[in-house]
Formats: sequence, C-alpha cells, structure tokens
Amino acid sequence: MNGQQFESIEASSASSDRDLPLQYAPGRTDLGAQGSEHRWLRKVLDLIDFPPVCLVLWDGQEVAPSTAPPVARLLVRNRDALLRLIANPDLQFGELYSAGRIDVEGSLLEVVEALYLARTNTVPGGLRRTVLNWVNRPRPNSLVHARQNVHHHYDIGNDFYRLWLDERMLYTCAYFPNQAMTLEQAQVAKMEYICRKLRLKAGDRVVEAGCGWGALALHMARHHGVRVKAYNISREQLAYAREQGKRQGLDERVEYIEGDFREIVGTCDAFVSVGMLEHVGIAHYESLGELIDRCLTANGRGLIHSIGMNRPAPLNPWIERRIFPGACPPSPGQMMQVFEPFNFSVLDVENLRLHYARTLEHWRNRYTAAEPQVEKMFDPSFVRLWRLYLTGSQAAFSTGQLQLFQVVFARNRNNDVPWTRDHLYCQDEVRGRTDGAV
Amino acid sequence: MNGQQFESIEASSASSDRDLPLQYAPGRTDLGAQGSEHRWLRKVLDLIDFPPVCLVLWDGQEVAPSTAPPVARLLVRNRDALLRLIANPDLQFGELYSAGRIDVEGSLLEVVEALYLARTNTVPGGLRRTVLNWVNRPRPNSLVHARQNVHHHYDIGNDFYRLWLDERMLYTCAYFPNQAMTLEQAQVAKMEYICRKLRLKAGDRVVEAGCGWGALALHMARHHGVRVKAYNISREQLAYAREQGKRQGLDERVEYIEGDFREIVGTCDAFVSVGMLEHVGIAHYESLGELIDRCLTANGRGLIHSIGMNRPAPLNPWIERRIFPGACPPSPGQMMQVFEPFNFSVLDVENLRLHYARTLEHWRNRYTAAEPQVEKMFDPSFVRLWRLYLTGSQAAFSTGQLQLFQVVFARNRNNDVPWTRDHLYCQDEVRGRTDGAV
Repeated sequence: MNGQQFESIEASSASSDRDLPLQYAPGRTDLGAQGSEHRWLRKVLDLIDFPPVCLVLWDGQEVAPSTAPPVARLLVRNRDALLRLIANPDLQFGELYSAGRIDVEGSLLEVVEALYLARTNTVPGGLRRTVLNWVNRPRPNSLVHARQNVHHHYDIGNDFYRLWLDERMLYTCAYFPNQAMTLEQAQVAKMEYICRKLRLKAGDRVVEAGCGWGALALHMARHHGVRVKAYNISREQLAYAREQGKRQGLDERVEYIEGDFREIVGTCDAFVSVGMLEHVGIAHYESLGELIDRCLTANGRGLIHSIGMNRPAPLNPWIERRIFPGACPPSPGQMMQVFEPFNFSVLDVENLRLHYARTLEHWRNRYTAAEPQVEKMFDPSFVRLWRLYLTGSQAAFSTGQLQLFQVVFARNRNNDVPWTRDHLYCQDEVRGRTDGAV
Repeated sequence: MNGQQFESIEASSASSDRDLPLQYAPGRTDLGAQGSEHRWLRKVLDLIDFPPVCLVLWDGQEVAPSTAPPVARLLVRNRDALLRLIANPDLQFGELYSAGRIDVEGSLLEVVEALYLARTNTVPGGLRRTVLNWVNRPRPNSLVHARQNVHHHYDIGNDFYRLWLDERMLYTCAYFPNQAMTLEQAQVAKMEYICRKLRLKAGDRVVEAGCGWGALALHMARHHGVRVKAYNISREQLAYAREQGKRQGLDERVEYIEGDFREIVGTCDAFVSVGMLEHVGIAHYESLGELIDRCLTANGRGLIHSIGMNRPAPLNPWIERRIFPGACPPSPGQMMQVFEPFNFSVLDVENLRLHYARTLEHWRNRYTAAEPQVEKMFDPSFVRLWRLYLTGSQAAFSTGQLQLFQVVFARNRNNDVPWTRDHLYCQDEVRGRTDGAV
C-alpha cells in the first residue's frame, strides 16, 4: 500500500546506524564499554522491571538481571539503543526491534512473554511508572480522531491482511470449541456462537457496529435469515464487504454503511459489536450505551465482544502508538459504563482469553510463512514490526496481560431471555464440528 | 423464637387503631374525607411515582392515579396511613401492610410488581428521590454491625425456616435447568452447577465464606471429595450445620467455623461464597478481594454468587430495614471492586434472575401453606411481614429490579482454566435431571 506508517517509525528511531545491516557484530569494543559499566548495568536491570533476558552488548559482552534465569539472548547494537530500552522497555522494545537496532536469538515469543510478566510483577504506581504512563499515554478518540486511527490500521491494504487472515477475513478472536480446529473452522464457530448468544431468528433486524470486512453480517443473514445494517469507518474494508455481499447474493439483506457508531439510526432486535469497543475509548462508552438504548427494541438482545484487561490500565504503549492509535482495552468494571447508566441487564460474560492466544498463534504462523511477500509489499522494518505485533499480542493473551470479554445483555424488564445456557452447547455443530460448514 | 423483631415494627407504626381487626370497614365517612380532597389526591398520585393501584379510602371512596389502569385495590384505613404511603411508598408500603393498616384486594404480587415498575420508571435524581434516598439509607456493616445484622435475620429460628425452605435448608437462588423441577431438585442442581463451575476435584481444599445451614459444604465434600472450611457468623445456622455434618459422617472433611470472612485464614484451591456479598457492603469489597488474594493458590478458582442490581442503587428500604439490615446488592461494576484491585481474571458471569423469581415462587407457596403455623410461632404482623417480603422479593426479580450474578474468577496467570463452558452442560444430570440425586 503505502510506506507512510513505516516512515514515521524510522523518523522516531533515527540514528546514524539505522542503515547498517541487521546482523549483529560481536566483539566490537570500540564504543567504550567497560567491565565496571556492565556491573552498573546489571544493578540497574535488577532495580527496574526488566525482563529476564541476557543482553548481548555491542562489544560482545553479556549482561543479564540476576533475578531470574534468562529466557533468550537479546542483541543490542549500541549504547543509545541500550539506554532507550532501559528507560522505557514497554515502548522502546518495539521501536528498536522494528528498526533492527535490537534483535533476538531464541524465541521472540518467550522474550515478549517475559517482558509482559516483568511488567505485571511491578506494583502499579511509583514515580517511574507514573512518568512512563504519561510519556506513553494513549491518543484521543473523537469522531475525527477515530477515522484517522482506523485509517492508520485497517486501510493499509486488504492484500496484506489476506496473506495471514482466514479466507473470510475475520480479524477478531476465533472460538475453538475443539482445539484441533483450523482457523477457518474456528472463525465460523465464533460467528455461529455469537448468533446463538444473540438468539437470532428469521426476520430480526440487526445492527452491527464496526463490521470489519463484513463476514459476520453475511453469516447472520445467510444462516439466520436476518437483515443487517453493518457500520464501519474503514473504506477499504467496506468496499471489500460490499463486493462479498453482492457476490453471495446477500446485498438485499445486508447493508454496509460508512459511519461511526455515533451515526447509527433506526431500530433493531439485536445489536452486535465485535472488536470495536477497545477502539472506542472509555470516555465514549456512555454515548455507545445511549445509542443502544435508542435502537434496541423492548425484547432485543445485545452482544459486545472486546479485548479487555483485568483492571484499568493503558494498553502497551508501543501497540497503541504503532498499531492501534487510541485503543484502550477496558476492565470489566469499565465495560459496565456502557450498560449501567441505561439499566441494561448483563446476562452473560465470557472470557475467551486463551482462544485469542490460539487465534494469534494461527495468524503468526501464517504471517511468518508470508514474510517474503510482506517484504515485497512493504520493507524489512514493516515485516519486523508486524512480526513483533502478532507475537507480542499472542504473549499478551497467553500471560493474562489482555483478556477477551463477550458480554450479552438485554433490557431490564425483558423476561424473554433464555433460562439457561444449554442452547449454546450440547449440539454437535458447535461442540466439535470440524467440517467448517454450519 | 422471640418477638423482638415484630415489636420494633409495632413501635414504629404505632397508632390508635393498631389493635382493630384487619377487615376493612367500607362506608366510613366520619374522618372528614371530601370530594375535593380526592381530586387533589388523584393529582398528587399522578405527579409522584405511585403505582397503578386503586386506593379504597376509609370513607369507601376510590381514588387511583390516571396514568395506568389499576392492577388491584388497596384498602387504606385512615388519613395517617395514606399520607405515609404517599410520602415514602418504598418504605411505608411494607410498614403499613405488616401492621395491617393497609390491605390488598386482589393479587399482592401484582401490586408489588406495580410498585417496583413505578419505581424503575422514575428517572433517578430529583429532590424527592434524593431526600427519600437519605431517609431510607442503609446501615453500616462493620464487623460488629455485621454480627448484629446477621443475627437479626438468620437467628430467628431454624424451625421457622424449615417450614418453607427445601429439606436441605438452602436459602439462596436455586437453579432450574428443567422448569418442572421441584425446589429440592433445583437446589441440588444449583450446588452441583457451582461445583462444576469451580471444577472441584478430589482432595481440593475449599473455603466457603457465609455457609448458611451448611448444605453446599456437605454436597462438595460428599460428591466431589474435597475438604471444606465453611465460615458463618450465625450461631443457630452453625449449630444446625455441625449436626448435619456429624449425622452424615462428613465432620472430618467439613469444618464449620464461627467467623466473619475477615477472619478466614489458610490456603485454598477453591473459594466460594453464595449469598454473602450482598450483605458485605461495597466499602468492604476490597477487604474481601484481599482475603481471597491471600488464600487462593496459583491455579485456584473462585465463585461468588450474589444478588445484584443493574446499576448502583440502594436496596428497597423496607427490605433493608425490616429484613436485611445493612444489605446492599451491587451492580456488576461494583462487584468488580472485589476482583480488579487484585488482578483477578473474571472468567464467567451468569445472571440467574428468573431462577430466583422461580425459587421465591416456591418459597412463597410453601410459606402461604404454613402461615397458620407461623402465626402460632410469632403473631399476625410477623406473618404479614414475611408474606410481603417473599412476595416482594419475587416481584423484584420478575420485574428486573434485582438480579442474581454468579461470577467465576481465577488468577491472572492461571492458564489451567477451561477452554469452553461445555463441561457445565451436555450431561444429563445437570440438564434435565429430575430424580433429585447427583
């Protein structure tokens, strides 16, 4: 697509050696490294929340914090990279890795998991953490910013995402009732699971806020006979979705609309939003609740599927800056700000964290296989940035740094809600289905 | 047991006619009621959040708000009762009904449902609501108050509760996977459901905070081979529980301990609390979370089952004052104050509101049949108080005024959590079992 994103990364990590080859040059000692410096360095690593990795410095010497055995070797090209890494590892690990100014010998996944575990070991608060939280603060998410932020991530090219997403282009957590499922099967299972949680029936009017490449809307229309108004602010995604709708002969039942959730109008029997809330910003949750309150019928059902966190905390600042500007995964309590002011009843919350770790493992494996093609479309730094993003996201879910919440809700006085959750299970096509068809 | 509770009600509703028979005397006009007063009264009823019931006044005349057709006739004995009812219906309806100063012709359930629906129609805020919230504010819940409050409700006599609870004396929401189940079967299904949500396995150490008459602890020990430390501050309940433990030969595996949750010590693989959180008081949630954080092993699981509300709001003040002093059902967001400060992962939240309405219907029917016996144990006013409490509670759940949340949680880094919720369903003994045995 375009190199704009990559250029901005280069600008921020500009240094005299940025054009040097990525290979590490062991044995260089001409940068003034000394034994005493390394002893000092080890003490610093022990004091801060630095992950247990062995730093291999530009002069070939190795230093690691003494708190835990190292999980891998991290090659650091020069003193500038080292200082940045120590000062703000959450942000700089990604910046330096993308630019090739640090590299990993061993498992990148294990290094990032260690980075997350070190991070969650730290008691929140403290001057250093306060300063870092300010430095790494997320961006605002007004109507204008929201469009810019979505463009930043989702409009870098459908061809790129096609390389590593499933065939229906679902870019949210899949559901693996059977762990041997393929990614394709698990994405279909996820869509079907959501339809069941929403208890869709033929003729229902559905509003989908943030429809991605449109697969869920098509699934709901095809398999449950509903009419869908699906909103999105990414033009590339909408163009793709509309084409799919026409190709599948569903364009009369699925309407893809360019619009932010704040622009949704009309009435619906079911409201669904998958993977949008984490981009909305907590300050806007009440607007979202107000919108749902305006649209939903008396016996309507709603489902919000979102990345979340166990407690209020900012997203990893590098992900927020380079991948998802303005994103902020809510804690369960923060999510309730969508529902409580409007007296919605929360019926069911499910945490699918491990399913997202598995989904990301699939994406990462496909991405790794496609790296040569990605490099042809973009450049080496972009390849490394996305490699780290997918690996780091898997680590965030596998270490419990991030969660995935599906919340089902209804109006306060709606007694037409299911008695039990039996209807979600106990049927072969959701439990262990591996044929991919529903 | 003792008449203390009843006496305190009488004291607050003392009036010259409290010893008159409960029958209404139509046609009395000697209290100065006039046509103009009734027109004024209708206007007042329209202005405030008064339920759509037809007031039959002491002079035989009938007045109803003009906003909705009346659901039943409410007999009001004199002007004093009328003024109290209008000033503060949430509190005074119960006070006057217990004392026999108002009565209902028609369905008491429908009247109380109408009272709740009128209440939830009102926009929160406004001077009248603010004043009423202050007048009706709940009581504190320190360690000392907690003991007093529990004594107030739970120590009025096991013989009384035996009249209308199931044979195992479970005084919390049952689970009716099959709506035709008896109360006994549904209470067993609830206990088994909780054990499955906790994934109990033989040898696990379980802490139960607030164990009631001890049935869940015995079920867990008998059917899942665990060891239980069960805490309670009600002596009558503990005496009953210990006797049951001995009788069933489980006293080596189940230890009943007189103590508040703040006094719990030791380590556990599973933490469970059913029907305690609503009595804890929101200000003490963090202490509860701290306790769990101190006790729970790295791969431990927890479950909290509590009455709740859709949004922060006080409990009905009459229930709080006469039945459950200090009680405050939390909103889902407020419940998160137990988990978020300690980085617990919320895995599953289920709302069982309609199951509690059904449970209360069972209790109410049994209670109605047992009213003559209750009157022998206490007196007519006590009979009416509990009739209204059970009816009103059913109405609160059927109208969505109250919710019932079961929250399953685990530590942040615990990856030994179930992939799906399949294991909770799809097995005959939980789905449709009606033989009562597990």
